[in-house]
Amino acid sequence: MFMSSYQSLTIDSAAALVKKLGLFDESESLTSNEIGDGNLNYVFHIKGTDNSVIVKQALPYAKVVGESWPLTLERADIENRALRIQGTFSPHYTPKVYYSDKDLAITIMEDLSHLEIARTGLINGQDYPHIARHTGEFIARTLYGTSDFALGPQEKKKLQHTFSNPELCDITEGLVFTDPFFDAETNDFEEALRPEVESLWGDNELKLHAAQLKRLFLTSGDALLHGDLHTGSIFASETETKIIDPEFAFYGPFGFDIAHFTANLLMNALSRAENRREPLYEHVTTVWNVFTQEFTRLWQENNTEAFADTDGYLEWLLDDVFKQATGFMGLEMIRRTIGLAHVKDLDGIEDDTARLQAKRRSLSIGAHFVKERASYSSAEQLVAAFKEAVK
Amino acid sequence: MFMSSYQSLTIDSAAALVKKLGLFDESESLTSNEIGDGNLNYVFHIKGTDNSVIVKQALPYAKVVGESWPLTLERADIENRALRIQGTFSPHYTPKVYYSDKDLAITIMEDLSHLEIARTGLINGQDYPHIARHTGEFIARTLYGTSDFALGPQEKKKLQHTFSNPELCDITEGLVFTDPFFDAETNDFEEALRPEVESLWGDNELKLHAAQLKRLFLTSGDALLHGDLHTGSIFASETETKIIDPEFAFYGPFGFDIAHFTANLLMNALSRAENRREPLYEHVTTVWNVFTQEFTRLWQENNTEAFADTDGYLEWLLDDVFKQATGFMGLEMIRRTIGLAHVKDLDGIEDDTARLQAKRRSLSIGAHFVKERASYSSAEQLVAAFKEAVK
Repeated sequence: MFMSSYQSLTIDSAAALVKKLGLFDESESLTSNEIGDGNLNYVFHIKGTDNSVIVKQALPYAKVVGESWPLTLERADIENRALRIQGTFSPHYTPKVYYSDKDLAITIMEDLSHLEIARTGLINGQDYPHIARHTGEFIARTLYGTSDFALGPQEKKKLQHTFSNPELCDITEGLVFTDPFFDAETNDFEEALRPEVESLWGDNELKLHAAQLKRLFLTSGDALLHGDLHTGSIFASETETKIIDPEFAFYGPFGFDIAHFTANLLMNALSRAENRREPLYEHVTTVWNVFTQEFTRLWQENNTEAFADTDGYLEWLLDDVFKQATGFMGLEMIRRTIGLAHVKDLDGIEDDTARLQAKRRSLSIGAHFVKERASYSSAEQLVAAFKEAVK
Repeated sequence: MFMSSYQSLTIDSAAALVKKLGLFDESESLTSNEIGDGNLNYVFHIKGTDNSVIVKQALPYAKVVGESWPLTLERADIENRALRIQGTFSPHYTPKVYYSDKDLAITIMEDLSHLEIARTGLINGQDYPHIARHTGEFIARTLYGTSDFALGPQEKKKLQHTFSNPELCDITEGLVFTDPFFDAETNDFEEALRPEVESLWGDNELKLHAAQLKRLFLTSGDALLHGDLHTGSIFASETETKIIDPEFAFYGPFGFDIAHFTANLLMNALSRAENRREPLYEHVTTVWNVFTQEFTRLWQENNTEAFADTDGYLEWLLDDVFKQATGFMGLEMIRRTIGLAHVKDLDGIEDDTARLQAKRRSLSIGAHFVKERASYSSAEQLVAAFKEAVK
């Protein structure tokens, strides 16, 4: 459906496009570079005299394997529309979108190259003192704002209808919720971990809990999720935080985004010396406390639900979200250790013994959170259990 | 969007249409009658020499109030498409669709006038020995067949996308899940019940449970529901059962349809002499046992879910569905007693004392099932509790 008018941008045609759109003066001299390190998109960085933009174009195939793995371009449209909605509810933490073209799968947006990908910074020892507060506010605002509570069920269903995203959900359903629990071809783990991995494949209790969490992901349409909110989807500095790349956006369960953020914080903690972990523990408690406070504030300020004032409803909901998120967090720790997509935090530990210890801990702590999620009700408890497990 | 080409059928133009479509011979003499007793649709019964059909046309307003209450005609398209899908998975219990026209909101279907609306028959003392088995099979087949398990998540999401039904869901969200728990204008109850109704409005525990069940209805997309499967949506005889009128169809929680069927059976039981209730109790246990068996058979025969063989998954799922359905059943009993849409089973009890006793029981038993749903795990337990409550 898109292919008829689609053609790939080049560094020259990308520069010509931004001029044609009036984002720069006709006479201005521009530099244009392709800086994408992913394999699904072109990313052009275009710089003029005192202004710069990013031109992102989705590729109709995975670049890494030539044209052999076709992907629909609809993900660019999903990302563009998700950015605009997130920008409405959380402008401080969302890149500005200047222009989009659905047929060409192009989004032109704010240049964030003065910031750093948070995963990279965390690995290099940055602590980003505000990242957890900002991310907690982002998640609370974007999720609450697109929920039944804020929009009312009719408007919510209309918005939900525009964010059906089967193709990218399929990736998550496979790589996060399924493949790590079976001897699947996509799995990728160090041979030294085979005993732990085979024991995991044989752990029926764990698989039953994974199946329950997968069912939530497949069937619960609480709010418009980011859908891939790990530390590689965050640009950060000491003062700023921007959440990027919401191409996995769809209506899913409230607990999913915060779970991925906290899982990736804890995996970074596993890669750090013991005396450098505290900032990450604080991020885990802060993101939960800020999320809870902000969700509560929005609930009290603007709520279309007749039962909003029913004693215990908000508390029940938040506790339910916390428990499901604890499970999702555990699943993310497992799949980032033995599934297809690893994290550099763990893979980058050079010492074999230390790296294998960190990965074994990621697996065992992840499995514990999945199985025991119902017994947790605060981030402080999660952190205490984590500390105990890495003592 | 529909109004441009829409025009209402008459008994003559309906007859002309079925001839034009070749459903009858050009030379055949037809009788055409408008038999709709609802206020949302025209229903024409058209009879030839040895054949007959039903022509149903949705009205763009509620007939009972003239043209003052506009409704989109999309519901006719939803109903038509739901009938075709239900007919694929459960042909024996679904009326055949011969023709549909989206712009005119017309569906031409099998004439079922040799059958009787089950509610009417049950009120008149019919027992319909096969109705529970047939309905249990219908629910299991249509729900399982449209679930993630049968279709796989990608195909399921695509089908789900075509069944967004905000307008009719809004009716259920208001009339079933909200209004009966507040002093809402839509409520309608006998003044003698005011003490019970006010006590219900003040019952925070009940409202908390109602809010939890409403959240499931708003956010859980398990399968394509019928959406309004009470005994007034069933045509029956001693041998046949046909489920009609799926205009409320949408992707909702597995337990909803069976809950509405069983709630209406139990309300009929409340209207009967004690020695005439047993067939209804048997229907309640039969529909659950047949649903469970049939869902299990389909699960084992055709399942795309990698976790399908995980020990305990199916059992956990069925128990979860049972508990949510117990809650939905209780809500249906409450709203049919004090909400906008009553049931003739209760309203038709002529003796004031008997009628008020039945209604009080419907309220108190309904509230019990809502609050205590987590403690029930079999239909036999539900029936035992019901019997105890009406002793």
